[in-house]
Parts: sequence; C-alpha cells; structure tokens
Amino acid sequence: MKLKSLREEVWRANLQLEKDGLIFRTWGNVSGLDATSGILAIKPSGVPYSELNAESMVLVDLEGTVVDSSMKPSSDLPTHLALYRAWAGLGGVAHTHSTYATAFAQAQKAIPCLGTTHADYFYGEILCTRKLTDDEIGQDYEVNTGHVIVETYADNGIAPKDRPGVLVASHGPFAWGANATEAADNAAYLEMIAKLASETLGLKSTVKPISQSLLDKHFLRKHGPEAYYGQTPSTEIRTPIEL
Amino acid sequence: MKLKSLREEVWRANLQLEKDGLIFRTWGNVSGLDATSGILAIKPSGVPYSELNAESMVLVDLEGTVVDSSMKPSSDLPTHLALYRAWAGLGGVAHTHSTYATAFAQAQKAIPCLGTTHADYFYGEILCTRKLTDDEIGQDYEVNTGHVIVETYADNGIAPKDRPGVLVASHGPFAWGANATEAADNAAYLEMIAKLASETLGLKSTVKPISQSLLDKHFLRKHGPEAYYGQTPSTEIRTPIEL
Amino acid sequence: MKLKSLREEVWRANLQLEKDGLIFRTWGNVSGLDATSGILAIKPSGVPYSELNAESMVLVDLEGTVVDSSMKPSSDLPTHLALYRAWAGLGGVAHTHSTYATAFAQAQKAIPCLGTTHADYFYGEILCTRKLTDDEIGQDYEVNTGHVIVETYADNGIAPKDRPGVLVASHGPFAWGANATEAADNAAYLEMIAKLASETLGLKSTVKPISQSLLDKHFLRKHGPEAYYGQTPSTEIRTPIEL
Amino acid sequence: MKLKSLREEVWRANLQLEKDGLIFRTWGNVSGLDATSGILAIKPSGVPYSELNAESMVLVDLEGTVVDSSMKPSSDLPTHLALYRAWAGLGGVAHTHSTYATAFAQAQKAIPCLGTTHADYFYGEILCTRKLTDDEIGQDYEVNTGHVIVETYADNGIAPKDRPGVLVASHGPFAWGANATEAADNAAYLEMIAKLASETLGLKSTVKPISQSLLDKHFLRKHGPEAYYGQTPSTEIRTPIEL
Repeated sequence: MKLKSLREEVWRANLQLEKDGLIFRTWGNVSGLDATSGILAIKPSGVPYSELNAESMVLVDLEGTVVDSSMKPSSDLPTHLALYRAWAGLGGVAHTHSTYATAFAQAQKAIPCLGTTHADYFYGEILCTRKLTDDEIGQDYEVNTGHVIVETYADNGIAPKDRPGVLVASHGPFAWGANATEAADNAAYLEMIAKLASETLGLKSTVKPISQSLLDKHFLRKHGPEAYYGQTPSTEIRTPIEL
Repeated sequence: MKLKSLREEVWRANLQLEKDGLIFRTWGNVSGLDATSGILAIKPSGVPYSELNAESMVLVDLEGTVVDSSMKPSSDLPTHLALYRAWAGLGGVAHTHSTYATAFAQAQKAIPCLGTTHADYFYGEILCTRKLTDDEIGQDYEVNTGHVIVETYADNGIAPKDRPGVLVASHGPFAWGANATEAADNAAYLEMIAKLASETLGLKSTVKPISQSLLDKHFLRKHGPEAYYGQTPSTEIRTPIEL
Repeated sequence: MKLKSLREEVWRANLQLEKDGLIFRTWGNVSGLDATSGILAIKPSGVPYSELNAESMVLVDLEGTVVDSSMKPSSDLPTHLALYRAWAGLGGVAHTHSTYATAFAQAQKAIPCLGTTHADYFYGEILCTRKLTDDEIGQDYEVNTGHVIVETYADNGIAPKDRPGVLVASHGPFAWGANATEAADNAAYLEMIAKLASETLGLKSTVKPISQSLLDKHFLRKHGPEAYYGQTPSTEIRTPIEL
Repeated sequence: MKLKSLREEVWRANLQLEKDGLIFRTWGNVSGLDATSGILAIKPSGVPYSELNAESMVLVDLEGTVVDSSMKPSSDLPTHLALYRAWAGLGGVAHTHSTYATAFAQAQKAIPCLGTTHADYFYGEILCTRKLTDDEIGQDYEVNTGHVIVETYADNGIAPKDRPGVLVASHGPFAWGANATEAADNAAYLEMIAKLASETLGLKSTVKPISQSLLDKHFLRKHGPEAYYGQTPSTEIRTPIEL
C-alpha cells in the first residue's frame, strides 16, 4: 500500500468514528499499518475532526519515530504500537470514549454475549482488562495499556481476530481489524453492542448469555470459512489476522 | 402490482427504516410480496443503504429462487419466506436490530401493553418467541426462525394482523403488514413502544398492563370495523390480513 | 384574532412540537382558540407533519362542529374542547406522546418537583389523572379524557395556569397555555422536566422534592407579579389564564 | 482584550453550548471577563439562540451595572459575578441545564471519578453544593448561588482550576475557565462525564473511583507542568487560574 492511500484511509476511518457518533470533540483516534514498509499512519493529537485531512495523519514507524509530519501523533500511539508489535497481521486500531462501551469499561465489566447482534461480530463476551498497577501507570503508561490488552488475550487463549475489541478497565474501548476501516467499524459495532447489552441488563439483570450453538451460527455465518453473508467474500469477509 | 412498483415500494420502505433511526449500517431488511405473481422483492445482503436503489432490490419467488438480480438477497430471506408461506394475505415483512425492541428480545421478555400508544398498534402484549433448539439452529436456521414466529402465533391463538410484530428471542424484532410500507411502519411503532415500555418499567417495575376496555377502545378505534381515526379508510385503515 | 392568523399560529405550534423532537409520525396535535369568535383551529387527523400547512388546520366551534375544512379534525378534539369549555381564558392545548412524559403517564406516577428547571414552569408536581372507568372508556372516551383532567385540577384545588400540563394515566401528556404557542412550549418543557426527573430518580430513587421556598422563588421569578426574567413582560410573561 | 472581541468570543461560546446539545431553548448562559478593564460580557436574558449575535451580548462591570446594551443581562448574572469576584484569574463562566449534570445536581450527588475521561478534565469528583437555606433563597438568591459555590471549594480546600465545574444542588451545573471558550468546553466535558457516570452506575452501583495514581496520570498529562497532550502548550494547555 502506498503511504498516500494509507493516510487517506486512516483519515476516512477517523471521520467515520465521528459520523457514527462515537466521538466527542477530539476523544478518539484510528491508526492503520502498511505491513510492507512497517509504517503506520495515526491521527495527530488534539486536533478537531473538522480540521483533519489526509495529509495531517502522522506517519511513524513501529518504534514510534515520526517519519513524516510536523504534528505530534495521538498520545495513545504507544498503545497502538504495542498491539501492532504483539499481533502479526494486525492492520488497524481504533480507540474511542464512546458512551456505552466506556461505561462497561468504567464498571470493569465484560459485555456478555446476549444476542445475535453481538455474535455477528464478537465470538464471545467482550473482555475487560485488569486494572493497571501503580507502577504500570507511573512508568510507560500508554505502552502498558497496550500490554495489558495483549495479556488479556494471551491469558484467556483468545485470538484477537475472534474478538476484535476490548475494554480497558477504567478507561474505554480499543478495537482493531485488518485495516483502519475495519478497526473503526469494529469500534462502532462494539458501541452498539454495549448499548444493547446495557439496555437488556436494565430490563433483566439475570439474563444469560446465548447458547454456544447460536454463537457459532452467527459468528461463523459471517466470519467462518463457509460464510454466506454479504455479496462476495472479497468485500465482506474479514481478512484473517494471523497470530 | 407491477414488479417495478414493488421494487420501488420495497426500496422506499427500506429507506424509511433508516430515516426512522432503526438501522445501524446494514442491520435490517424489508421485503414486499406481489400476491398475484407470487414474486417478492427484498433488500440485497450487506449493501449500504446509501447505495441501494429500486433496481437493487432482489426479486425471488416463494421458494426463494432469485428471478431477477445479480445480487444475493438478504440472508434473512428464508425467515421472510416462512412467514409469507404461513400467513395468507401477508404483503410485507421488516426486520431490524433497533435498540429497544432488540433489548426486549435479548431479555426474552414480552412487551406488556402499558399504554394507549401500544394499544393503537398492537392488540395486546408484543410476544417473544421461545429460543430455538440446537438442532433448529444447526440446520435451516433462518427458516426455523420463521417457523418459531408462526408457532408463537398459532400456539397463542393470535392473528398476525392483531399483533403485527414479534420479538425473536436473543435476536430482535420482525414486523409485518399488508405491504412493505406497513411492515416498515410497524417495525418503527414496535421500537417506539419498546422504548416507552422500557422507560416506564424503569420508573415503576410493578406497573400493570392497561385494561381490556382501554385496549379495545384504542386498537379498534384505528383498526376495527368502525374505525374513526385518520382522514379516509382508503389511506389510513390497514387492509386486513386474511389468515 | 383573525382566523387566518389563528390557523397560521396553530400550524406553527404543531411544527414546533416536531422540531422539539416530541413527535413520532403523526402522534400529537395542537389547537388554538380565538376567544372572540369562539372558533378554534386544530391539526387534522392522521396527516404527516410535512404535508401540513396553515390552511389544513381545521376550524371548529366549541361544540366541535367543523366550520371550515374538508378534513377531519384530530380524533383528540373532544378532549381539547372539554378543556376549553371548562377553563375560561384558555387559549391553546397541545397533546403529545413524547417519550419521558408518556413513560410517567404509563407508570401512573406524578412527576415530583426535583429541581429549579421544573420550578421555572410548573408550580409543584406534575399531576397524573386517575384511570378512566370502563364506562368512561366505552362511551364518549375522548370527552371523558378531558373531564378527568378538569376533575384532577378541581379536586386538588389547583389553577391550570400554575401547572400548565398534566399526565393522563396510561395515555400521555396534555399541556396548555394562553395560546397555541404557549401550549406547545409547555408540552416541550414538560418533556424535558420528565426526562430530568427520570434520570434523577435513576440516580437516587429516594430524592425529595425541592423546598417550598425554592419552588416559590423560581416559579414566581418567571410567572409572578414581580417577575424579572426575560426582556420585557409583554414578550416573556405568560398572559394569566383566568379561571 | 478589546471589548468587541470579548463580545464575539462570548457569543461564540454561547453558540457552542447549543451546538454541543447542552441547551434547550434559552436554558443556559456564558460570560467572559476582560480582566484589564474589569468588564464582562454575558448573554442577554431569555433571547433565543438563533437571534443572538455578538452585539447582543450585554457588557457589565463587576458590580453588575450594565455599561453597554439596551437588553437585560441573564438573570444568572449575579451568580457569575460572585465567582469572578471570589476567584482571581477567572475569565469565563458557563451555566447550563444539561440533562445528566442536572440530574446529578437534582439528586444532590457528587459525580465520582470513575474513569480516565473524567480524570482528563477534573482532578477528583465533581462536587455538589449544599442546599441553600430559606433565607439565602429569599434574599439575593442568585448572589447566594455564587457564594455557595465558592464556599464549597473553600471548605474542601480545592482550587477551582483543578475542578472547573460544580453542581448546584437542586439546580444544575456551572463550569468555568480562563475564558468563555474554556468555560463552555468545561460545561460540555462535565455533561459527557455525567452521562458516562450515570450509565456506569446503572451497570454497577458499587463501582469505586479510580486510583489516585491513574487520576494523577491523566489530569497531569493534560494540565500539569509536564503536560504532553495536544500539539502545543499555547493552544492546548489551559492557562492556569490563579487563586
């Protein structure tokens, strides 16, 4: 991928977050990686969405060194980098403070899989990380935020592509995918699912997660090898993320 | 009805769902049946609403064979077909993942009739189906989703026209009517009623359903033989669905 | 007031309800009375807001006889008429199914005065009527809906101008004022106050109403004889409704 | 600062409140102070937002005497003045009745710091004042509203710049900053934080505030001497308010 088109896609993915109502002011950021060059583009820090354009996306390498921009990258960059370095094949990361996902994160509560909308995108409950220790907060906080996400998936033996989003305890959601567009999409799906779950738990706090068979049916209908949702595999099926 | 105008109506009914705020991305679909030819039009699978037009609606027969389109029909088509085959006179089906109706479906909780807004459109509580068995999920899942809806109405002795929408447990709402427009309207009313019920139960969890006399008054004022709401029977009163 | 300008004001007041987000489809209506001629204008029944204009407002006398229109008046007209006949000086009535006010009505729960926003517009809790009897529902239902509102104010010794809106049990809110514009405004304030109260009770179910001194201060600051809110009495202070 | 540009900024800050969805009708006001001249600009009382312009902002001195306008200032002016007089360096004040912040105020409940979104803007829980006494309500009510805010910060030993917003019991939020723009921004952040907290408490009522180390990390990352969020200190870091 040309870096120009990477910047363009990352810019559009950032705008998509705002169009989907996930963003207040500058609260959020998307990055996308060009695997060939090992260069990623990410939103600059603290710039209003209306002033962003493709050129304002900051190019950095996987060590976090800015390679092309006069602007500072998002302060969450180290978290993004920790995910790209840990998970081979990852192509995009999105972070928001969207209301319902953030509420679950603040409540330090995983989002149980209560219906097929959830099962269409996440293969099981949406996990919440443990809290960071004071040491992890005091030193390299943003890096450690990435590490605790990676740890959560490793400890639970879960492939990131099967649950393309997580809640960072007391903070908010991170989502990801094969590219920036998918990452932003998954951030949006996560928020919608969180809203549905919150409203469902309000109606019946004792509701149980759906059966494994229903979970399998919906997730694999869209993401499995025999997926039959959408028009063509090339446009609808997610490129698997290798781990 | 000409198939061209069927496609046009079905397209507009799909757009209406989005205008009413019931749809996120591609989560929903409406179909409409031309009873004379036995041909129905339905939204294609996984296509953004902004890219839809009348021509992109997929024409299929009641066996589900595509008769005119290069696109795949919505993956929920078999559910629609099961309803059309079971209920003579049915002319439109709408499916959404609208927030409040889906929350009730996920809570596996019927929506009690708590006020006249509900009684204006649904003649009693909005039912929730039983959960599908693992076998029903494993084989012909979408068809069985239709069957469990039909079973719910048969087992409770309820005419589909008297409660033109239902909650599929752990999934979401389906609504219907004499045509695609009515089906989409009923999906919208169902969502508004679910929102009102959710908020009402939040204020007083022990609230009782309204009296039979008030239910009769409101439903029959609009839908009974002596209906007096609206300007003229031809534009306002629903064409009865024969069963 | 000329009937042409009455129609214009009533039309605009109906549109204002929709702009304020109180209306879904055709769920709501405003009327306004010309006291001199005893003629009122009201929204026609079941017509979409986008198709309304000043001329489509239906003119009727206080007996409910249509004096100028080819359209049927709102089916809630008899409720409006019952209020105009009971309360001298009343100049406008608005009815909606707005979400939060309707939820309180469905919960058959008065809205306690929990803050100064409420006290700015309603001089005490917003009452909820008793339920109608089966007989009252069976015969002259819409008229009896008006009667139970009037009864609620008479039994509690409350002047309609001091609480310009009420919840009809199991139905929804009615609001009123010196003219159609004020009636629509009060319907909007009622909805906002209901939303605030609902959210407040969710945070603390045991919260008590504000003190009489704070209630007096806010209501009388805007509506009392020494009102000092707004630019000029002529534009900001409500014309008192005589009773 | 020239008074012309002060009026312009105050006007824009008032509009920003409305754009951020914090305002219904005329419920809210922002003022800004020119420290050199001791003149402040404030929204006029009861004028619709659509009719406001820079010239309609009312100029008053710190005693509240109107120095340039034919309009009356907001009736909340004495509350603004009490804050400007008590806190040296204060440059802007904003008041709204935004839904979630007002609900906490009506519940007389401080907003606990439940996550990093909160910690990015407020260095600890968002306080709620005590209720005013009957005497304080009866005489100089608006001034006393300001006094109880100042008292709350003094009694708790909190610097206003560390928690640039408060809940006035049974009323609603006031926020402030180095200028009108910051004040309006903080009113918006307060509302978003209140919404997140309300939703979080709905999911888990027993959730505890975040650790001091996480609070320090986030607040000081943006507002401390070594702040590293945003593009440049001059545009992103708040001018400290001296006390």
